Amino acid sequence: MAEPDDAARHRAKMEKRKQMQDTEAAARTREQGLLMVHTGTGKGKSTAAWGLALRMLGYGKRVGVVQFIKGAWTTGERAALESFGPLVTWHTLGEGFTWNTQDKARDIATCRRAWEQALALMQDPDLALLILDELNIALRYDYLPLDEVLDALRNRPPGLHVVVTGRNAKPALVEAADMVTEMTLVKHHTAAGVKAQPGIEF
Amino acid sequence: MAEPDDAARHRAKMEKRKQMQDTEAAARTREQGLLMVHTGTGKGKSTAAWGLALRMLGYGKRVGVVQFIKGAWTTGERAALESFGPLVTWHTLGEGFTWNTQDKARDIATCRRAWEQALALMQDPDLALLILDELNIALRYDYLPLDEVLDALRNRPPGLHVVVTGRNAKPALVEAADMVTEMTLVKHHTAAGVKAQPGIEF
Repeated sequence: MAEPDDAARHRAKMEKRKQMQDTEAAARTREQGLLMVHTGTGKGKSTAAWGLALRMLGYGKRVGVVQFIKGAWTTGERAALESFGPLVTWHTLGEGFTWNTQDKARDIATCRRAWEQALALMQDPDLALLILDELNIALRYDYLPLDEVLDALRNRPPGLHVVVTGRNAKPALVEAADMVTEMTLVKHHTAAGVKAQPGIEF
Repeated sequence: MAEPDDAARHRAKMEKRKQMQDTEAAARTREQGLLMVHTGTGKGKSTAAWGLALRMLGYGKRVGVVQFIKGAWTTGERAALESFGPLVTWHTLGEGFTWNTQDKARDIATCRRAWEQALALMQDPDLALLILDELNIALRYDYLPLDEVLDALRNRPPGLHVVVTGRNAKPALVEAADMVTEMTLVKHHTAAGVKAQPGIEF
């Protein structure tokens, strides 16, 4: 148990901290659609985007997903999100990783089709959150023109939240974003010989 | 369009890359319950845990959540996960941040009750994923004995996946974990005066 002195010190410290927190919170007054980027080599980029989708669905708001790279294999996240019915619009345009298709012109055409779905979703006034999964990969290999993508993101409806995932986010996208987290790899189980498992990787 | 030479070079490079990827994937043969840690000061630690929950629910598997710090305010993630009915068991024991309660003995008692719920869930043979949200905070302030927590995590059923979230993960927990991602803050919208918004922060 904490000694009385310790308890009093703790309370005094926490009172000060609460004051600081309250002052900081009071300074945050704006509400706006955010451009968010999840990048880095660690696990959690797409996963955190699914978490945001879930959070938004908890308020009964509409969520759109466009997958630029990953192919149309079965995933737990897709099955679970589609259980929310018409609140979720899901487009998987990707045909797998670049080393699967081995055809650059085809990859470029695929990314273009995915981007057109993204543009269409941005016009939907009821959409609250748009997830552009692995768009960073398409940008990194110049499969889509960066300027065109940035312009469209800047000119989206002001209330629309957008998440862009994938390694190697372009510096200009980081610059344009409101929130950027780098998922930094500290340790990954695949390096220890554990295979991709349902519910964890897909 | 890609020139023929460029296309051929691309294909050759991707064939080699695919070979490498296939070799690496073949070396990953084990399946096991993973101990995963989401730490760091960036946004996405709990959010990525909700994404894992969603993924697991997509396979119809059971998920348990214990919240050690955050209080019982309404959140989108809770509303959305509870729409999966009996597949989700959710315990919010926390009473808010330490600067809200301002009472260390009470915080310690709260963490103990939360930990007991976690221990009970670990005994459930049908549970696939257990999320210990903000357990890192409880450990950081020594509100729970680290050794006791590590022992229980090591002795959990071998197929059970566990995610521990929160800043300042203890080095011994990082050591014990199979997968650790540090959510590194690159840029956060609260610094620009944007307030916490439903669907994004809660």
